[in-house]
Amino acid sequence: MSEQDPERDERHRQRMLRKKTVVDEKIAVAQQERGVLLVLTGNGKGKSSSGFGMAARALGHGLRIGIVQFIKGAKSTGEESFFRRFPDEVRYHVMGAGFTWETQDRQDDMAKAQAAWAVAVELMRDPDVALVLLDELNIALKYGYLQLEQVIADIQARPPAQHVVITGRGAPTALLEVADTVTEMGMVKHAFKAGIKAQKGIEF
Amino acid sequence: MSEQDPERDERHRQRMLRKKTVVDEKIAVAQQERGVLLVLTGNGKGKSSSGFGMAARALGHGLRIGIVQFIKGAKSTGEESFFRRFPDEVRYHVMGAGFTWETQDRQDDMAKAQAAWAVAVELMRDPDVALVLLDELNIALKYGYLQLEQVIADIQARPPAQHVVITGRGAPTALLEVADTVTEMGMVKHAFKAGIKAQKGIEF
Repeated sequence: MSEQDPERDERHRQRMLRKKTVVDEKIAVAQQERGVLLVLTGNGKGKSSSGFGMAARALGHGLRIGIVQFIKGAKSTGEESFFRRFPDEVRYHVMGAGFTWETQDRQDDMAKAQAAWAVAVELMRDPDVALVLLDELNIALKYGYLQLEQVIADIQARPPAQHVVITGRGAPTALLEVADTVTEMGMVKHAFKAGIKAQKGIEF
Repeated sequence: MSEQDPERDERHRQRMLRKKTVVDEKIAVAQQERGVLLVLTGNGKGKSSSGFGMAARALGHGLRIGIVQFIKGAKSTGEESFFRRFPDEVRYHVMGAGFTWETQDRQDDMAKAQAAWAVAVELMRDPDVALVLLDELNIALKYGYLQLEQVIADIQARPPAQHVVITGRGAPTALLEVADTVTEMGMVKHAFKAGIKAQKGIEF
């Protein structure tokens, strides 16, 4: 692999130099610093885990974070056991119910979603919280357990430097419109469809 | 929001019951347990953070993990400071160079990528390591710093229960073919393009 090829090395150097110019120009333009709203949606694997990865990053910078898990909650997860280890830096709230098709009780689901939203609003009123992760919020919105207009208004009223990360399939259009960053995670392949169980560390 | 609507509640209950049947059937079919190969690619935000989120999940289950960061490495990141706090559970290796357009030195990049790959192979030979995250490996493959056939052979020779997560844009087709789960992260919107700086806890 370490073959000597001075011409190729030189072409690489030129190409990378041009790339560096382009990248540096883009960086020079992007100078605004403020809290961003990120939405991670789509059917592919990686939405919640990406939110938890940003939570880990923020902790690495000594920031304080808040996590609210909507919908999930009946069974314990790796993310919950892990992030609960840092009670001084992480405020963690899990909505007390399983996936909605487990409960089949709309009134109870709604009451729990609204209680979870009240915790989210509290986190979004605290300027000491640098990042708020609203995991699977999109599912609660999709089932109409929360009012979208109120949810958006509450998010927009947060402290200017605070980041909010929202995950879950089927993010509503109005939420995408007010978001700064939106990723649509497309499922190209999923092990589950090939008969492989959801596994520790990967899916939960 | 908590409006009483018994008919709607009943329709919800029926719909969720049907959904539960479908979900339960899928779960019953997916009973195989083994290490999976996940590839997170595409241009959207969330690939590396998703890998780090799975690392956090695995730690929550008391598992041991290995992380190798290819390409990145010139500047310190939140993920590195954070995961280095757990030296007994996490083996962390950062390839010693910035993004390749910063170095513009193909020979040096190749030597460093190969040294990083040697660390990855060591992790993939250790059955005590439950999950190996190969962050931005796709970039090293894209530039031809590593031989794809060898990389795939090394991954396939890992312990049967070990999970491998690979991130980075432009994953090669041959890698997607051998992967169990593939997510293509599509960029719908990115704050950076709207003039917002890469920020702590979000991008690094």
